[in-house]
Amino acid sequence: MATAGKVIKCKAAVAWEPNKPLVIEEIEVDPPQANEVRIKLVATAVCHSDLHFLLEFAPEKNFPIILGHEAAGIVESVGPGVTDFQPGDKVIPFFVPQCRECRFCKNPNTNHCEKAVLAVDRDSLQHSRFTSKGKKLLQFVGTSTFSEYTVVKEIAVAKIDPAAPLDKVCLLGCGISTGYGAAVNTAKVQPDSTCAVFGLGAVGLAAVMGCKAAGAKRIIAVDIKPEKFEKAKVFGATDFVNPKDHSKPISEVLSEMTNGGVDYSLECTGNVEVMSSALESCVKGWGVSVIVSVTMKDSFTASPLQLIGGRTWKGSLFGGFKGRDGIPEMVKAYMDKKVKLDEFITHNMTLDQVNDAIELMKQCKCIRTVLSVSPQ
Amino acid sequence: MATAGKVIKCKAAVAWEPNKPLVIEEIEVDPPQANEVRIKLVATAVCHSDLHFLLEFAPEKNFPIILGHEAAGIVESVGPGVTDFQPGDKVIPFFVPQCRECRFCKNPNTNHCEKAVLAVDRDSLQHSRFTSKGKKLLQFVGTSTFSEYTVVKEIAVAKIDPAAPLDKVCLLGCGISTGYGAAVNTAKVQPDSTCAVFGLGAVGLAAVMGCKAAGAKRIIAVDIKPEKFEKAKVFGATDFVNPKDHSKPISEVLSEMTNGGVDYSLECTGNVEVMSSALESCVKGWGVSVIVSVTMKDSFTASPLQLIGGRTWKGSLFGGFKGRDGIPEMVKAYMDKKVKLDEFITHNMTLDQVNDAIELMKQCKCIRTVLSVSPQ
Ligand SMILES: NC(=O)c1ccc[n+]([C@@H]2O[C@H](COP(=O)([O-])OP(=O)(O)OC[C@H]3O[C@@H](n4cnc5c(N)ncnc54)[C@H](O)[C@@H]3O)[C@@H](O)[C@H]2O)c1
Ligand SMILES: NC(=O)c1ccc[n+]([C@@H]2O[C@H](COP(=O)([O-])OP(=O)(O)OC[C@H]3O[C@@H](n4cnc5c(N)ncnc54)[C@H](O)[C@@H]3O)[C@@H](O)[C@H]2O)c1
Ligand SMILES: [Zn+2]
Ligand SMILES: [Zn+2]
Ligand SMILES: [Zn+2]
Ligand SMILES: [Zn+2]
Repeated sequence: MATAGKVIKCKAAVAWEPNKPLVIEEIEVDPPQANEVRIKLVATAVCHSDLHFLLEFAPEKNFPIILGHEAAGIVESVGPGVTDFQPGDKVIPFFVPQCRECRFCKNPNTNHCEKAVLAVDRDSLQHSRFTSKGKKLLQFVGTSTFSEYTVVKEIAVAKIDPAAPLDKVCLLGCGISTGYGAAVNTAKVQPDSTCAVFGLGAVGLAAVMGCKAAGAKRIIAVDIKPEKFEKAKVFGATDFVNPKDHSKPISEVLSEMTNGGVDYSLECTGNVEVMSSALESCVKGWGVSVIVSVTMKDSFTASPLQLIGGRTWKGSLFGGFKGRDGIPEMVKAYMDKKVKLDEFITHNMTLDQVNDAIELMKQCKCIRTVLSVSPQ
Repeated sequence: MATAGKVIKCKAAVAWEPNKPLVIEEIEVDPPQANEVRIKLVATAVCHSDLHFLLEFAPEKNFPIILGHEAAGIVESVGPGVTDFQPGDKVIPFFVPQCRECRFCKNPNTNHCEKAVLAVDRDSLQHSRFTSKGKKLLQFVGTSTFSEYTVVKEIAVAKIDPAAPLDKVCLLGCGISTGYGAAVNTAKVQPDSTCAVFGLGAVGLAAVMGCKAAGAKRIIAVDIKPEKFEKAKVFGATDFVNPKDHSKPISEVLSEMTNGGVDYSLECTGNVEVMSSALESCVKGWGVSVIVSVTMKDSFTASPLQLIGGRTWKGSLFGGFKGRDGIPEMVKAYMDKKVKLDEFITHNMTLDQVNDAIELMKQCKCIRTVLSVSPQ
């Protein structure tokens, strides 16, 4: 605890500018203020949302920033008023807070929270405890985990089983909970149903796993990179479709395979055209399509007749999980071998190699790369 | 029953070409074939969907046709195999059949039916029992009620209380059931909720009535024709917004009025931009937006973040009612004074005046015009 109450100097990967490699810098991390927790990060993974922000959603005013939001660590110290955490606790920070007090938190049907900061907002500077070279660095979605230390609001931190391996459960901080929950919580996939998952990155594969856990009898995995199909099988996919193998629209292909369309479709590609295809792939009458991927640059389009036809269109943020409740449950499910995590990890690197990890994801050559930040 | 088994010569309003006035012609109506019912129409109203078809969705191949689909009449004769109806029964034909045998009919959560013909399809000619001047006339959405007689499949006919006034309950054949059901069955409006209804034609006003019946505490009526607000009040609207009175987007106006957006929005204008506004007017986390209006010419657009934000987008066809079950219930609700109908009728005319009725609707100068076709 020698560091408690003091500024910590440590290493972080700083995004100084949009669309440029991150730079490993020495940064200063202020002590946590009221209701904040300072976390020593042990492991962080790279999620496609980091790339969207760095490469697409890039107004200069959102930089410099520390990216990263899928991580696990150990509480270093806590600010005034924090009673739920103490130094040494194993934790996972997350990007949709759960304040437990707002009308969203009190509603069991949503995981939104009035305190949420999506990406960066006007308070982000004020909430950031980071500086480097005399400049304040922004905090990303309330987390910023490409750093040895971060300061997060206590309402965005989940305390987890101390026996959990942080270099695995870090994945529950975003992608895996997101995909799994999109199937289980948002789509509410029913037993014996037919599902289609578009995009087999970690989010899509976790959606496949969620469909399987919910008892789907048929899970059609769709990706333009057929090398992803083998992994999809591991998570429970039963059918595999590469849109590039077909000249007709993929929704027609799926409709023919399923006598009219799937009961549930989950879109995890980040492409607005695929969002529309995923809707059109649903059976009329009761098909439910869930948009999981996030893109800030485009809008989707669809014919009103698709919805009049009885389809429902939804979206899922962090898989519908209220983080403080849901993440510890997902950690337990992993420890009980009910949820897979190891199978998502295709690469292990260190924080210094973050640009290599970003490059791998840009080229679709990984599922998840886990960067080790500090020893457990 | 002198006419049973014979061709009937009678009057009908024929749409020979897109975008032209209808022409009152003598037509021949064949006897009903197996599982069909020939109906003597007593009253038919004009719905905006007739106009969409005539004025917008107008490939030549869909003409000549007899439009009209919101009507009530009396069974004249029945074809072989029909056991549920006999001559003299008071009935309402409807445009989404209920075969009771397909997987949609067997699913309580949808009113779609494998036998549905939306607008006109390749079987329409074969199913039409109409000719005029030696030409076969197409049947519109399986109904065609701008005629003294029509032949409809028995799975698209509801037998109703013989005491019901046909010149009122004809409205339950489309618009009123559609709007009311969109609120009650599709949106599933909850007590004490806040709703917004966009477009205050008969469909929108019926949606207001549905929200009220479901116990909504606040119902915001939105229309660019403020003369509609008085009627909306009759059906239960509590707040009135004319988008033309505001420079900011209507979704912002509603968001400010409701501390973040409405719980349910129902879109009944036929304008794809309003569809997007209606979605954006919903509160994040749990807002549900239902598209009720139909347009065949445009697509809507929206940002994925709207859905990721926890909103749900649905559509409603015929208010989610399975017609053979739902229409008699709605007739009963009217007879029991639980549902209003008379208040929707702004004009009464005869079938001969159908073009005047169409003109009134084109100019937004009516709610519903009921055309009397034959004496009750
Ligand atoms: N809603 C949320 O809370 C949330 C959380 C995390 C991530 N996300 C988003 O989910 C998306 C997926 O994230 P990820 O980390 O798994 O990304 P990823 O890049 O690893 O996976 C995307 C997959 O989609 C496939 N793909 C791309 N275009 C395709 C097409 N046209 N048809 C079929 N497949 C196609 C790619 O080959 C790849 O396998 C991203 O947009 C990310 O921002 C959303
Ligand atoms: N889903 C179904 O099963 C079903 C059934 C019947 C009718 N419909 C459709 O419902 C729609 C409404 O039918 P109707 O008969 O009530 O039509 P209508 O023309 O009487 O009513 C439309 C109303 O929308 C208003 N409006 C137009 N543009 C607007 C805007 N930008 N903002 C706010 N208000 C606006 C008009 O002033 C009018 O009051 C039509 O598109 C019709 O085809 C659908
Ligand atoms: Zn993520
Ligand atoms: Zn909250
Ligand atoms: Zn059916
Ligand atoms: Zn209609």
